[in-house]
Amino acid sequence: MLLVRFFPREFNFFDAFDDHVSLAVEAAVFFKDLVSKREVDEVALGKMQTIEHQADEATHIIIDQLNKTFITPFDREDIHALAKELDDIVDTVATIVNRMKVYRLTGPNKNLIEFAAVIEESVRAVASAVQGLRHVKNAKAISKCCVEINTLENVGDSMRDRVLAELFEIEKDPIVVIKWKEIYENAETILDICEDVANVVESIVVKQA
Amino acid sequence: MLLVRFFPREFNFFDAFDDHVSLAVEAAVFFKDLVSKREVDEVALGKMQTIEHQADEATHIIIDQLNKTFITPFDREDIHALAKELDDIVDTVATIVNRMKVYRLTGPNKNLIEFAAVIEESVRAVASAVQGLRHVKNAKAISKCCVEINTLENVGDSMRDRVLAELFEIEKDPIVVIKWKEIYENAETILDICEDVANVVESIVVKQA
Amino acid sequence: MLLVRFFPREFNFFDAFDDHVSLAVEAAVFFKDLVSKREVDEVALGKMQTIEHQADEATHIIIDQLNKTFITPFDREDIHALAKELDDIVDTVATIVNRMKVYRLTGPNKNLIEFAAVIEESVRAVASAVQGLRHVKNAKAISKCCVEINTLENVGDSMRDRVLAELFEIEKDPIVVIKWKEIYENAETILDICEDVANVVESIVVKQA
Repeated sequence: MLLVRFFPREFNFFDAFDDHVSLAVEAAVFFKDLVSKREVDEVALGKMQTIEHQADEATHIIIDQLNKTFITPFDREDIHALAKELDDIVDTVATIVNRMKVYRLTGPNKNLIEFAAVIEESVRAVASAVQGLRHVKNAKAISKCCVEINTLENVGDSMRDRVLAELFEIEKDPIVVIKWKEIYENAETILDICEDVANVVESIVVKQA
Repeated sequence: MLLVRFFPREFNFFDAFDDHVSLAVEAAVFFKDLVSKREVDEVALGKMQTIEHQADEATHIIIDQLNKTFITPFDREDIHALAKELDDIVDTVATIVNRMKVYRLTGPNKNLIEFAAVIEESVRAVASAVQGLRHVKNAKAISKCCVEINTLENVGDSMRDRVLAELFEIEKDPIVVIKWKEIYENAETILDICEDVANVVESIVVKQA
Repeated sequence: MLLVRFFPREFNFFDAFDDHVSLAVEAAVFFKDLVSKREVDEVALGKMQTIEHQADEATHIIIDQLNKTFITPFDREDIHALAKELDDIVDTVATIVNRMKVYRLTGPNKNLIEFAAVIEESVRAVASAVQGLRHVKNAKAISKCCVEINTLENVGDSMRDRVLAELFEIEKDPIVVIKWKEIYENAETILDICEDVANVVESIVVKQA
């Protein structure tokens, strides 16, 4: 057991994070395709749940190995935070999809299409940043991704303010306001989580410098 | 002072967690009884606040001892997370009770009765899992509790989706929608927190293996 | 580089936290002035964003130095939590101001004026507590601040319950209910965050005893 702890031959945290962040990208791409459709059907909901469960599993594998492993490629709390936040990205996409179904929202909604495009861009930058952690020499490229993620978070803030102002000004049905307010806020939250990932990634890079 | 730090004779973290988790069970049982009544009166609110304050106190005692103690039975960050999340269970039950009073909700509401039953079940499983931490030989029984907690969280997700869909379809008064949406979402959140506790407990067990 | 890590001559965490907490006070004072006005205009929004960016920057500087520094005046996780929560205070004030603009709320609103006064008081107590960390001999004065912060959090809870009950009883327009419910809840959240800061400060003091 002790030997396994010190020499976990078969487990590579970088590979595990590559798998994890690929699921986040898959969720973002799926979401972008979905919001251009008329509605969320059972097939789409099932597909989303599959990605969500795979991301849960990927998180669980990383945390479990972290608990069993003595020597890690970067700080334990950063591994923990990274796994948790990549999972949060997928969970929040899944929450939106779920609510679109529960609220029987029909589309396509041009604001959500815009959000989904920014989300995909940001999650792809997250993927590049996380994949870059494998080599210290990538520091500059990683930093560029993090700057992009921060910019996209600001874009998301402005978008949310604009679409909420519009929603409260134009929409007269309070039930519709409740539904879309929640969807838009969750969409913006995904960009916040991407920014949290960027912060963890930057911490890891700084510590390795 | 230093001697006290190294030999905290009188403090036992397992006893303290037993006390803490008993308060979570007390809150869950109280909540289950309450939701079968017509309304939340001052007496019920007072009883709930008493449990909440006791849980705050239990949390405070654990964190305080953690800060004063050098050697702990399991990882410091797990003790911290466990104390925090048990407190969150009680706080969220208290939030629901409080809002039922503030919103002058009258019942009984069959959906909330269903939620309260699942919550009680989950919190009892949380209690068994936490109490099991005292002995490494309980690993299998603890694992069984954690699986149950995860299952109940899934049950809660489906319940929330069903009752929210129903609420938005049937209820025409937006103010009523706002009130019950919040109550149902908080009820489901308690099951999420139970799952978080299960994750911490599993981490502790894995590290001790 | 290694020398820099061990002897970060130019960086002082206490000075950095003084700067950070001053921005929280600035935000609270600005907010108290703002809520007595008729509405949030572009100038006010710009001023708020400036404070928010400065607080972001102050947080970033502390985290960055934490990552580069080997020896810190108190536990690393406490430095991290403190920086994060001071930033959350400013962010939540900014969120309220932003929503007042997005929702085109006009005032002054007497409930929000009351909240802003309690928030300013609490943030000033937070400032005293954080600034006190510089000297162990301040333990008693710090403790007094923390008690005050806890008291003000209870005051905020009661206020929120009272104003929400009033809002749901009197206001017949659901859209208006949605807007002010969010504002009031965010106002109370600031007092919760102040309490979180008090808890971290108390942990730091206990560990130094």
